Amino acid sequence: MTQYRIAILSATGAVGSELLRLLDEREFPVAAIRLLASPRSQGKALTFRGDHMPVMAVQESSFEGVDLAFFSAGAEAARKWSPVAQEAGATVIDNSSAFRMEPNVPLIIPEINWHKARKETKYYPVGNCTGIILAMTLAPLRKFGHFRRIVVSTYQSASGAGARAVHELEEQARAFARGDELKPNVLPYPILFNLFSHNSPINDAGYNEEEWKVIHEVRKVLEQPELPIEVTCVRVPVQRAHSMSVNVEFDSPAPSVEAIREAVEAFPGLKLVDDRAANRFPMPMLAAGRDPVLVGRIRKDVSNPNAISLFACGDQLRKGAALNAIQIAEKLVESGYLT
Amino acid sequence: MTQYRIAILSATGAVGSELLRLLDEREFPVAAIRLLASPRSQGKALTFRGDHMPVMAVQESSFEGVDLAFFSAGAEAARKWSPVAQEAGATVIDNSSAFRMEPNVPLIIPEINWHKARKETKYYPVGNCTGIILAMTLAPLRKFGHFRRIVVSTYQSASGAGARAVHELEEQARAFARGDELKPNVLPYPILFNLFSHNSPINDAGYNEEEWKVIHEVRKVLEQPELPIEVTCVRVPVQRAHSMSVNVEFDSPAPSVEAIREAVEAFPGLKLVDDRAANRFPMPMLAAGRDPVLVGRIRKDVSNPNAISLFACGDQLRKGAALNAIQIAEKLVESGYLT
Repeated sequence: MTQYRIAILSATGAVGSELLRLLDEREFPVAAIRLLASPRSQGKALTFRGDHMPVMAVQESSFEGVDLAFFSAGAEAARKWSPVAQEAGATVIDNSSAFRMEPNVPLIIPEINWHKARKETKYYPVGNCTGIILAMTLAPLRKFGHFRRIVVSTYQSASGAGARAVHELEEQARAFARGDELKPNVLPYPILFNLFSHNSPINDAGYNEEEWKVIHEVRKVLEQPELPIEVTCVRVPVQRAHSMSVNVEFDSPAPSVEAIREAVEAFPGLKLVDDRAANRFPMPMLAAGRDPVLVGRIRKDVSNPNAISLFACGDQLRKGAALNAIQIAEKLVESGYLT
Repeated sequence: MTQYRIAILSATGAVGSELLRLLDEREFPVAAIRLLASPRSQGKALTFRGDHMPVMAVQESSFEGVDLAFFSAGAEAARKWSPVAQEAGATVIDNSSAFRMEPNVPLIIPEINWHKARKETKYYPVGNCTGIILAMTLAPLRKFGHFRRIVVSTYQSASGAGARAVHELEEQARAFARGDELKPNVLPYPILFNLFSHNSPINDAGYNEEEWKVIHEVRKVLEQPELPIEVTCVRVPVQRAHSMSVNVEFDSPAPSVEAIREAVEAFPGLKLVDDRAANRFPMPMLAAGRDPVLVGRIRKDVSNPNAISLFACGDQLRKGAALNAIQIAEKLVESGYLT
């Protein structure tokens, strides 16, 4: 079996470490791996398959001989280093938002739209984590009719704001236990025992960047460029895994709860968690550190005969980032697009 | 000024203590106060206006000579003791759900529908906390047109499940700091760093009791018995104050953001918190322990020209319970209904 030379930029972040773990777990055919980061992370070392490996500062020559480069270093780094990597012959899978909305760039969730990939494509962005979890939740429902309108409210974990935000949440719990004040630093307000509108800039229409990404990326993935989506993104005191309350209005009468349950169960990458008697539905403690997006609380909407409601929860570092990236890489291998 | 003889059942609970604090803060004309509770709380003492007062076990004779009885002891206690209190001549203000939906019982939020009160009414239920906060949020919007449909997702604090649930959340934070496991006891799942669908039984339509109360009580308060409302109730790791993401669809084009802001600012009991530049919107840390319901994140819904979205946050022990109860009492005094 062909093996591939991999580079990871940045290997030291939250998504980078998840990528390393998944490459190992999923037995990706790795010939060699190069761990890259910004100069300030140089000198660190990480473990991959039992080997201690140095983290090197990214530079022009970093991508020579690399088949596949995973990026999770933000939009600015992607704009700078993605052309360099592609020039050196690598296919780039990028977790940043830098080029997601470019018309000629496919935005791939393998379970949904792998048909948009081409052999000649050398750059694959991974979508926004909340957008991926929402698109996964909506995908199996398309067979029941045309969507008229989607209304979503999110419950997003601290890890969406990076490993430092998770640390801040945990530190605030320790401060509370000591009787100390809860000081915000990474996030704009105390997050322990609090919640607030997503901390990204707000545009003239009144939407924050996160909401805008979700609306436009989900439309792109589902290939419904005009799909009416309303989303409110909220940060909650959860370490990991994003939840969302989703209302789906169809153009026609809503399908039965049983039909939706079956569609969710049959869809790859989703797991049905919908036990009304036990009051057990998707929640972060069930989704964190796991691959599938959990879907449940499925019901016909009493306010509209064409609508249904459900609740979804997914690990945004897994399916919302690193897992989706590895799945793209696996598809590239399987399709012979990397050779 | 006439002063009134008050009874509080139960004085030892979360709402009861808030009631005592508010009676003092708002200088309610109290001639005498009788603190009642279930027999297991007998022997406790509470402080009111500097006086140490014993808590007595509630019994048949407890309401003799009482003008006004505040109940916050649950539906079962209300069914048992409310007729006794009324028989003794007291007007009852009850925080339980026992009689809220009875057709001949007014469900009063003083800022919205005091006109439903009558001199001969001797029983006033206080609505569900989430329903009150939602009704308050919707009330000022009615002047902009007929509501076609309301879609709500809530972020409900532990205190909605009682003082013991708040204690459990805080104990879990202390356990986390010690490195111990997070054991649920009052709530069905760990609540620290987690969230879950509201822990009340689910009916055949797939709605839990909390959601069903919100739908039906808000319709009653707004006097729109057929108003289509969809609500998803979620418990989050917040000590106090319920938040909600609210989408309002009108029958006609949505009003401007500026017009809504003005309507919110002009409505008694609401406070506008809507600073896009500073990313400052309603959140529990701003609402907890305060009277007004905070409203913000106001925007036209990009998915529907007739709809708007907003985010609200209110202290469910204040406006969602004790404050609304005291406001009813104040209105009764003002209207001469207690004499």
